[in-house]
Amino acid sequence: MDRNIKLILEYDGTNYHGWQTQAENGNPTIQGTLEQALKTIIREKVTTFSSGRTDAGVHALGHVANFMTSNTIPAAAWAPALNHLLPKDIRILESTEVSLDFHARYSALGKTYKYRILRRRAPTALYRNYAWHINLPLNIRKMRSALPFLVGRKDFSAFRGSGCNAKSPVRTIKSASIKKDGDFLELWFEADAFLQYMVRNITGTLVEVGLGRFTPDDVGRILRSCDRTQAGRTAPPHGLYLMDVSYPESR
Amino acid sequence: MDRNIKLILEYDGTNYHGWQTQAENGNPTIQGTLEQALKTIIREKVTTFSSGRTDAGVHALGHVANFMTSNTIPAAAWAPALNHLLPKDIRILESTEVSLDFHARYSALGKTYKYRILRRRAPTALYRNYAWHINLPLNIRKMRSALPFLVGRKDFSAFRGSGCNAKSPVRTIKSASIKKDGDFLELWFEADAFLQYMVRNITGTLVEVGLGRFTPDDVGRILRSCDRTQAGRTAPPHGLYLMDVSYPESR
Repeated sequence: MDRNIKLILEYDGTNYHGWQTQAENGNPTIQGTLEQALKTIIREKVTTFSSGRTDAGVHALGHVANFMTSNTIPAAAWAPALNHLLPKDIRILESTEVSLDFHARYSALGKTYKYRILRRRAPTALYRNYAWHINLPLNIRKMRSALPFLVGRKDFSAFRGSGCNAKSPVRTIKSASIKKDGDFLELWFEADAFLQYMVRNITGTLVEVGLGRFTPDDVGRILRSCDRTQAGRTAPPHGLYLMDVSYPESR
Repeated sequence: MDRNIKLILEYDGTNYHGWQTQAENGNPTIQGTLEQALKTIIREKVTTFSSGRTDAGVHALGHVANFMTSNTIPAAAWAPALNHLLPKDIRILESTEVSLDFHARYSALGKTYKYRILRRRAPTALYRNYAWHINLPLNIRKMRSALPFLVGRKDFSAFRGSGCNAKSPVRTIKSASIKKDGDFLELWFEADAFLQYMVRNITGTLVEVGLGRFTPDDVGRILRSCDRTQAGRTAPPHGLYLMDVSYPESR
């Protein structure tokens, strides 16, 4: 186990029960599928370390994982070798060798998520698994004016999933922005790390602001309450994309 | 049969063998799936007329179809009634009553297609069914300078599929343009009508120009040759989107 290989993955989460292998049942996961492909190459069980878990249905354009191996396959060759074995909805974008102390989760400096909303009256076939379809008008100006309440080092208990087992509810959102792209609305969030359901809970709450059910000031009030029951609904998973995980330059 | 209902459809073509029902086998088609849903509502066989056929794997954001019925369901109610029965990868965006002489194909003034290319080195999981992935550099300037050869009333025999049974190979391309959108390249074509595989053959040829295998002038030469063997490969179906079918104002 003298080599540490870092993988950057893109996946379509539609057909998976999230990243993490679930011991209790046979539902396909990204991690389980990846580890099976690694086992086929190395001929022994491999454990992968991940930048984080993603929920069922969530997509990724830049998920990061790493694993230790004694295998001498050149680092760059892992990507094509794995892509040959993996289903087409999981692709390895890049494989590199990193120092032995690199850990996809513990070495991460930050993560960027995008949440994609399709706002139009008509239903959608093409984006049914790739965006949250909202058929009522959203006031984007009001949604944007709620963003400053979220940026900075805060206690995000109000936006934390009930199953979250992180020790501290404090996270630092470095930036939050909303971009219009035709009928789509993209909500971007960059933070040092995220709590379970945090992006989906924040998005659900911002949508309530867009719908006029909450004011922008309510978002600040909800955050300060540290009370999950104050916040809006949890946005559905299929609009969420893990875009990027950042590491110190040398990694 | 005193009412004529016009439908605008969006569909994800991934799981269908194109629009048209194939008598010879049981492959699912958009038309077959739609007619089955109509039959469930009306309780008798319904024939739909379409703005055109789409190939297996091709998508649509604005396909148009119509059908005649004696049923008195309000025109606008067909959309939700059908969407309740249709699979989620086919959606009716709009249903309206039109004059009895309206025919989705024969009344059409023009059609707009978009062809979507993903140009980057890394493979893709999320867009595997929704764009043509090209991992070599494309010279967009050269591709754009080939477009004027294609615009206007021309004999498009060189870009016609071998199974095409249109009486005339003459079509009028009203506009052709190439838009950059991040890693995506969108090729837009508007014409009075298109021959079989015409957009895919033109796209395949423009990609050869982008790759430097053809010059922009070659596109003019290929068109004048009226010889399909001169043109580039046929671009794969999953990058193609029927965007819009236009009709006289009153329809």
